[in-house]
Amino acid sequence: MTKPLRIGIAGLGTVGASLARLLQTKAGSILHRAGRPIEVVAVSARDRAKDRGFDAGAMEWHDDPVTLAAQADIDGFVELIGGADGPALECVTAALKRGIPVVTANKALLAHHGVDLARLAAANGTEVLYEAAVAGGIPIIKTMRESLSGNDVTRVYGILNGTCNYMLTRMEREGLSFDVCLKDAQDLGYAEADPTFDIGGFDAAHKLAILTSLAFGTEIDSGSIYIEGIERVTSEDIAAAKDLGYTIKLLAVAQLTDTGIEQRVHPALIPAAAAMAQVSGVTNAVAVDTDLLGSIMLAGPGAGGDATASAVLSDIMDLATGVVLPTLGIPVDKLKPYTRARMRAHEGGYYIRLSVHDRVGAIAAIATRMAQNEISLESIVQRRSSGHGDKAIATVILVTHETTESAVRAALLSISEDGHLAGEAQMLRIEQLD
Amino acid sequence: MTKPLRIGIAGLGTVGASLARLLQTKAGSILHRAGRPIEVVAVSARDRAKDRGFDAGAMEWHDDPVTLAAQADIDGFVELIGGADGPALECVTAALKRGIPVVTANKALLAHHGVDLARLAAANGTEVLYEAAVAGGIPIIKTMRESLSGNDVTRVYGILNGTCNYMLTRMEREGLSFDVCLKDAQDLGYAEADPTFDIGGFDAAHKLAILTSLAFGTEIDSGSIYIEGIERVTSEDIAAAKDLGYTIKLLAVAQLTDTGIEQRVHPALIPAAAAMAQVSGVTNAVAVDTDLLGSIMLAGPGAGGDATASAVLSDIMDLATGVVLPTLGIPVDKLKPYTRARMRAHEGGYYIRLSVHDRVGAIAAIATRMAQNEISLESIVQRRSSGHGDKAIATVILVTHETTESAVRAALLSISEDGHLAGEAQMLRIEQLD
Ligand SMILES: NC(=O)c1ccc[n+]([C@@H]2O[C@H](COP(=O)([O-])OP(=O)(O)OC[C@H]3O[C@@H](n4cnc5c(N)ncnc54)[C@H](OP(=O)(O)O)[C@@H]3O)[C@@H](O)[C@H]2O)c1
Ligand SMILES: NC(=O)c1ccc[n+]([C@@H]2O[C@H](COP(=O)([O-])OP(=O)(O)OC[C@H]3O[C@@H](n4cnc5c(N)ncnc54)[C@H](OP(=O)(O)O)[C@@H]3O)[C@@H](O)[C@H]2O)c1
Repeated sequence: MTKPLRIGIAGLGTVGASLARLLQTKAGSILHRAGRPIEVVAVSARDRAKDRGFDAGAMEWHDDPVTLAAQADIDGFVELIGGADGPALECVTAALKRGIPVVTANKALLAHHGVDLARLAAANGTEVLYEAAVAGGIPIIKTMRESLSGNDVTRVYGILNGTCNYMLTRMEREGLSFDVCLKDAQDLGYAEADPTFDIGGFDAAHKLAILTSLAFGTEIDSGSIYIEGIERVTSEDIAAAKDLGYTIKLLAVAQLTDTGIEQRVHPALIPAAAAMAQVSGVTNAVAVDTDLLGSIMLAGPGAGGDATASAVLSDIMDLATGVVLPTLGIPVDKLKPYTRARMRAHEGGYYIRLSVHDRVGAIAAIATRMAQNEISLESIVQRRSSGHGDKAIATVILVTHETTESAVRAALLSISEDGHLAGEAQMLRIEQLD
Repeated sequence: MTKPLRIGIAGLGTVGASLARLLQTKAGSILHRAGRPIEVVAVSARDRAKDRGFDAGAMEWHDDPVTLAAQADIDGFVELIGGADGPALECVTAALKRGIPVVTANKALLAHHGVDLARLAAANGTEVLYEAAVAGGIPIIKTMRESLSGNDVTRVYGILNGTCNYMLTRMEREGLSFDVCLKDAQDLGYAEADPTFDIGGFDAAHKLAILTSLAFGTEIDSGSIYIEGIERVTSEDIAAAKDLGYTIKLLAVAQLTDTGIEQRVHPALIPAAAAMAQVSGVTNAVAVDTDLLGSIMLAGPGAGGDATASAVLSDIMDLATGVVLPTLGIPVDKLKPYTRARMRAHEGGYYIRLSVHDRVGAIAAIATRMAQNEISLESIVQRRSSGHGDKAIATVILVTHETTESAVRAALLSISEDGHLAGEAQMLRIEQLD
């Protein structure tokens, strides 16, 4: 077992350069744990001249990652370019066609092509490893592929986007506005210049799609996820939630229901005393509910060069053993098709914030419409008002007992038609998490 | 890969019987994940007549687990008897001598004989797997052996005893006394009839010894752990801690210091806002601080038949792949000797509760003694008093800034010699956890 494992790395950015550095600076301890040396024999990026903080002298350089994947003399191919299609997909495909195992951190690629890649890997007697693709440095993929065998999962959920969690944490702790927090997240390099992908919930959705497949043994279906971002969450919502004993988090949830599997990403109120409510800043967390374990939770860094490279490295160590496991936990031909749960049937409590014309009888009218839709209220509170006389506007916060989204939407429509609303209603799910 | 994996199970109690049942009821999904059937071909327990809820018809029965280990036609041996020595040690040794890999949930065995067993396993080309031995259903062993390669660990700590955490949680939430909570824990089957092993901190210490070795690449040394149980924690301490913004937990901590590795198990105050403060009831949690990841935390069920059997099963699934990893993460001859950190050098804040004769100047005298020992106080509060006149006794709670245990002990000695104390002083560490 002293034959080195020769790998090629395509993509030498935040994660790729961290990985290459680690493999050099920690070669000694890696050898002890892997049982054989790990050698980077070939690399690819766009700019050959850039200094990336490691010694690339002995490494073969490829301008084209596909050529690296297709031709280099390697035992494993590491894709750290990013993107669902284009060069990432092409080079991963090229490696798998040669029967070379692939390690990737690319959630977009897997969310869109995971099943095809798993099939291609199986056909060529190899696998794709992707610990870093979901929740960065947290070993959730290994846990789901290897530690939960024999468990029937009923729900998997988590905080999967560090940028959103960083923003929500600062909005809560410092009472800052969404825009200020977004700008800081961008300045700190957490959010991209175009932050839609993070704050719109799309990044979390890609990660959820992968977890859903592992949890329920179904094909990946990232197109069926209900997605709502954090753009409409205000510091007023966060403050009101706090008073009610809740914290607002962008949650990604996949849940087994009577009609199929529900996949959703949206801001939600979770109890302030829940362990996940303590997950703050760029930290991610994932919880899995199963028949045998009840619930387990993993929390840790969701991004960052070193943390992500650490997860990539753990996959590379697994390659060193030579074992090939099914990419998606079970053989690809045993995956069930994904069956989407009936929409809006989700039962739970809701938080509703209304801007209401501050007139006598308004609250009574709102409460009546709720009752007509068979929504039982836990509380209804007028929080503050502004303006005077005819122009007076009050903020009303409602918390419902368990009901359905369609009932809430129907009630809000009536309330709006009654002419009580002075602005768009805010409506957030309450997730009890147990 | 369709050749079945034949296993023998010695010990069919809470965990063993759960495992045998699971292997029968979930054979289908286990086959998908393991890639080959898992067959229990031989079992051993004391009472052959007992109905254990699974079909033992086709299994070879052994009265003696050593005979099973030494003679049965098996690919893996599962030890679920318990105990550091005696039949557990004998049968595990017998299996390893034949080169048969061992799966065990036995922390006592590993804490006492782990290095010897790892050496015996390596000499015979096999390994010992023990996911269930630490924190039950939480995949902390796999995480430390396989996911943290390349990481340098600086600290590992956790809540490793469900009985203690159950008791402390109830004392906090319901204001109940230690004795009432202990009785309930016994009635519910969490604590043994002789609960010393749990509440004295010894069970947590066994688990910590294993984690320390994996974290720092050192030999297991369970004899060097500083151990303090929860027996002296009162509901008054818990209430005072709560007012100060802390929760009391039995923590197990292994930490790299300048003078070596500190291993300690003791009740500690942790910030109520820390994720680990939310770990309640019989739940366990482990956190690992590393250079690459910052901190990761895993939480879940620390005990129970099914949860523990789930962890045992994940080890058995790993056997099915045929890979042999070093039992303690790195080759046994690469383990460093354990170097114990200098005692009482630990720096941190302390919580101190004193019963003081309620006389004019007492608080000033106490504060002066603290100052003379260069202990800076964060707060000093008189919480309540009882009795009258000469007999009046006050409870005084002190919280110190960072200092050393020896400084606190010296100050308390002076305070006692000054004649202020009406009872034994309580002193608990404050653990900031970040
Ligand atoms: N950053 C994180 O914290 C994090 C966390 C989890 C997962 N991930 C995932 O990890 C992957 C890499 O992320 P990253 O943050 O490291 O990205 P990045 O910093 O943008 O790096 C991308 C790398 O790919 C190279 N590249 C781009 N197009 C190429 C092409 N056509 N041919 C060859 N090389 C090309 C770039 O070359 P140049 O350097 O020459 O421009 C760069 O080295 C993505 O899938 C991402 O989703 C990242
Ligand atoms: N229970 C948990 O939640 C938990 C959690 C984590 C780890 N563990 C560990 O798992 C192991 C098993 O625990 P457990 O709770 O399942 O123990 P248990 O319920 O007491 O079961 C012990 C089993 O061993 C058998 N046994 C005892 N002495 C024997 C001997 N000389 N020869 C053959 N069989 C013998 C007993 O046989 P009879 O049934 O015939 O008496 C019984 O089936 C221990 O190491 C424990 O520390 C347990």
